[in-house]
Amino acid sequence: MRSFAIVGHLARTEGDFILEDLPGSGGRMDLLCRCIQAALFLSHTLRRDTDCYLVFLGEPAPPKTICIRGSEVHSLNPDERSTAALLRKALALPVGTIYRSSTPGIYIRATGFSDLLLERGFALSDEGGEDIRKIQNLPASFLLSDHLNLTKEEQMYIPPSTHKISVSPRSLHADHVITLIHNELDRREAGWT
Amino acid sequence: MRSFAIVGHLARTEGDFILEDLPGSGGRMDLLCRCIQAALFLSHTLRRDTDCYLVFLGEPAPPKTICIRGSEVHSLNPDERSTAALLRKALALPVGTIYRSSTPGIYIRATGFSDLLLERGFALSDEGGEDIRKIQNLPASFLLSDHLNLTKEEQMYIPPSTHKISVSPRSLHADHVITLIHNELDRREAGWT
Repeated sequence: MRSFAIVGHLARTEGDFILEDLPGSGGRMDLLCRCIQAALFLSHTLRRDTDCYLVFLGEPAPPKTICIRGSEVHSLNPDERSTAALLRKALALPVGTIYRSSTPGIYIRATGFSDLLLERGFALSDEGGEDIRKIQNLPASFLLSDHLNLTKEEQMYIPPSTHKISVSPRSLHADHVITLIHNELDRREAGWT
Repeated sequence: MRSFAIVGHLARTEGDFILEDLPGSGGRMDLLCRCIQAALFLSHTLRRDTDCYLVFLGEPAPPKTICIRGSEVHSLNPDERSTAALLRKALALPVGTIYRSSTPGIYIRATGFSDLLLERGFALSDEGGEDIRKIQNLPASFLLSDHLNLTKEEQMYIPPSTHKISVSPRSLHADHVITLIHNELDRREAGWT
């Protein structure tokens, strides 16, 4: 089972953003949609062994967390607009601190970064981390930030023992990092390394 | 200098597709936009050392080829919609067989797959190819197909000596393949392997 969690620092927390302006009115919702695409799509099929967590920290009602379960999700297409429409539907629901189902395989609750990290461990995607190819026992759960770095407050919630992992000598978009992590896991599962 | 060429078998060849329906009316234009994003974007900057060729083979006026030069392009954002708007502007221009400038760094002409391959060599992204990590002298130009395989006619234009390269034991979206190729080149340039 693989998991990716992506923190959307500006991502809109109501279902009122405009599908024609995902970067602006959605608070870089386009970036989160591409992360979902990288986390859950293979060619012509979905990665049923992967869950994707999205932490929404933008206005007007932060925080919210959406979980997309690869094993359950239906009607997910790879393009940004249709994915954003599913997120918008979930964000329009009234929610408390317990996950509530939106569409099949998509769940939402009104909790944020610290709650997710209290529940489960994640390795951290970090440019200064250990080269993923050199790590013998690769974790299966990864935390990534969007186009902004984790804040000092967010960093305080990350346990000191957290494994920091780097995938590239270059600074990459979060969705590209997810693709590279999947590839390393795929190769090891298939005996390609 | 790196180059990626992506064949869009159904990609609309006029500037009349609907930005609200890139997969349908654009003939999987969403996929081509994600390939551009994978080919040209680093975090907070562009890959100025990369060119991206897109071959449009859909209705109503195939073939057309758009070249996006990373060294010249302006006003390119990573989201699908704004990228598609730039492609639509280029596809709306009357064109012949010589590249014509659309917006800065974006060129279009009314030629297709065979012309591109006559001009320059590409390695071919192929699931049955050699593992990219095992190739000593890695090429810098790569040809990829969209969600459809190359047709038999297209395959006839590919020289028998073409290097076939695989990046994964799984069948991946073309944009994910581009990300993985860039990563291998980045690692070698930085002495990470």
